[in-house]
Amino acid sequence: MSEANGTAPGGGSDEESQAAEPITLEDLPLRDDLRGRAPYGAPQLEVPVALNTNENPYPPSAALAAALARNVEEAAAGLNRYPDRDATRLRADLAGYLGHGLDGRRVWAANGSNEILQQILQAFGGPGRTAMGFEPSYSMHPVISRVTCTEWTPVERSGGDFDIDPRTAVQAVRRNRPDVVFLTSPNNPTGTALPLETVAAVAEAAPGMVVVDEAYAEFRREGTPSALTLLEDHPRLIVSRTMSKAFALAGARVGYLAAHPAVIDALQLVRLPYHLSAVTQVVAATALEFADELLGQVKQLRQERDALVEWLRANGFAVAASDANFVLFGDFGDRSAIWRGLLERGILVREVGPPHMLRVTVGTAAEMSRFREALLQVSAEHPA
Amino acid sequence: MSEANGTAPGGGSDEESQAAEPITLEDLPLRDDLRGRAPYGAPQLEVPVALNTNENPYPPSAALAAALARNVEEAAAGLNRYPDRDATRLRADLAGYLGHGLDGRRVWAANGSNEILQQILQAFGGPGRTAMGFEPSYSMHPVISRVTCTEWTPVERSGGDFDIDPRTAVQAVRRNRPDVVFLTSPNNPTGTALPLETVAAVAEAAPGMVVVDEAYAEFRREGTPSALTLLEDHPRLIVSRTMSKAFALAGARVGYLAAHPAVIDALQLVRLPYHLSAVTQVVAATALEFADELLGQVKQLRQERDALVEWLRANGFAVAASDANFVLFGDFGDRSAIWRGLLERGILVREVGPPHMLRVTVGTAAEMSRFREALLQVSAEHPA
Repeated sequence: MSEANGTAPGGGSDEESQAAEPITLEDLPLRDDLRGRAPYGAPQLEVPVALNTNENPYPPSAALAAALARNVEEAAAGLNRYPDRDATRLRADLAGYLGHGLDGRRVWAANGSNEILQQILQAFGGPGRTAMGFEPSYSMHPVISRVTCTEWTPVERSGGDFDIDPRTAVQAVRRNRPDVVFLTSPNNPTGTALPLETVAAVAEAAPGMVVVDEAYAEFRREGTPSALTLLEDHPRLIVSRTMSKAFALAGARVGYLAAHPAVIDALQLVRLPYHLSAVTQVVAATALEFADELLGQVKQLRQERDALVEWLRANGFAVAASDANFVLFGDFGDRSAIWRGLLERGILVREVGPPHMLRVTVGTAAEMSRFREALLQVSAEHPA
Repeated sequence: MSEANGTAPGGGSDEESQAAEPITLEDLPLRDDLRGRAPYGAPQLEVPVALNTNENPYPPSAALAAALARNVEEAAAGLNRYPDRDATRLRADLAGYLGHGLDGRRVWAANGSNEILQQILQAFGGPGRTAMGFEPSYSMHPVISRVTCTEWTPVERSGGDFDIDPRTAVQAVRRNRPDVVFLTSPNNPTGTALPLETVAAVAEAAPGMVVVDEAYAEFRREGTPSALTLLEDHPRLIVSRTMSKAFALAGARVGYLAAHPAVIDALQLVRLPYHLSAVTQVVAATALEFADELLGQVKQLRQERDALVEWLRANGFAVAASDANFVLFGDFGDRSAIWRGLLERGILVREVGPPHMLRVTVGTAAEMSRFREALLQVSAEHPA
């Protein structure tokens, strides 16, 4: 400990400046399997063009913001009371949005799809149980598996263009007998959607639960199916969704799922009571009323995405086909140099996934124009 | 399956009406230790006088509701982006409210104190680890222990009037060497606060983390201490709080804790990224600006509580001394009959804790007047 610390003014409440050795995380009785880990999360940097976390670039409209204010003010009158523990209205509204003959009994909501996934693993995973996923994929699947003490079994995507080969997938499921299988459609960070045949084949082979993470479902191209159509025949199938992307509500933290009512009975055993605030419930329900407006922006983003893919290909970049609001592109000899070069020009993308590629979120037309211009400059400076 | 089900009109999306046997929770691969459990939670009944979940009876004022609307509308402009993952402003504001020389690095916030407790057990409990509590106490401590696969070790409160005898507590800690000890001050459902000497003795004996659950701290009587004063000397001590009670925000789900910064480093390893929505952060920060107004109502409730205790004693009821916004009272030969009699008169209390007692939340003066009148009638019909 330095003198400088010891002479800090106004001390007294800072135990590091008093104790012989400062206390750190190493000194606490942390679980062994967490030691040496770093907190999960992309850097939260302030940049002119943030294309790194697959956020929707369109903020809520003035009309939606005003409706949120009005409805929160109304809900405020009851905020001294606990919220509806079962989020009955919101779940019915979400079911109505999803369609497919679903009702509120077949829908469940939580604080972001991360909490949805955590509840699924708390009910169906845990010590002595395993979860399987097809990588590269959403990095929270193994992270939440670890937090819930569920063993993680990664399987490599063996199909071309980051596809999952259904025969390989079924073999991996039969060999490992995982308690929970994560599928993703479209997949993050590759943008790859799954044919229904693959989902059905895995669901039939799996001895446990199968989760299809459809966080980016609304961005899929015409003709790409949703696993919602398979729910009726598969009571161990769960389709998870989020309002973060298509509904442009990443800040409001609303994830949800559709499944057999018995699955929701199971999640009720592990959910924290009153896990979803009355404010979150009303914010989500209000945004659903603006679905047409928000899905109009999704349509724009899909067009922007398709144009970006075409432009990247025309300019000689490798591109994974994308059904999401982001594109994985390369190949770069030194992707970190490209990442830094873009950041120097005020554009933040994500260094994630296969080692020669980068992921860029689809933003507004103006943002994508800046991205294209910067990428040409940076890649000229760093030829592959 | 009955014919009647088979002929239900408009079927087609209801698999129970098609399958040979309906699927239930029993058919799903649920964790073994969850089988046969029921979801946690008090009945959510609509009654004229709800005195069952220790809610604050005063809704947010019109001024606070308007400020919430204004600030949520402002925050809405950024809701398409993820929230500040570290809730920096809110944590600093909470630290300012707590005082005791705390700053934002020593405070952490989550969706209700339930999520705070879950994160603590995810980091410091888990498989092969144990948590200890002194019962009767808050029933979520064992529930969250189970969800996080932490073994629960209950110890009976052996002191008079539901006190914890410090020697017994220290012996129990030395014998069992729990990884996490839960203390409660004031305790739910008894209202009992702990002397600092007891907290300090347990903290010194405990090999792991010690959590003092102070959900009801603001309601304690003059001269009753807070464990916040012990934090500086005990890096493994955690004090948890909530905005549900004193801040009348049960519907907004905001819990928080104060602890050594290294403890918060540990919780960062298990928290779901972006667990706290931008809306929750702004709602909580706005309510903190109204602390004077809200704590004025807490003062009224403390007076109402003291008057209730006095009245109960004067009318021959047994009463546990209370530092909280509820009172445990009895003794009843058949407490269920008393509970039902009160409910028939529109008053809902909680059948919880020791078998001859009931817990009543302190409401408004008008509500307590109705409670007293009804209690005299019902107890006359059911003499002990």
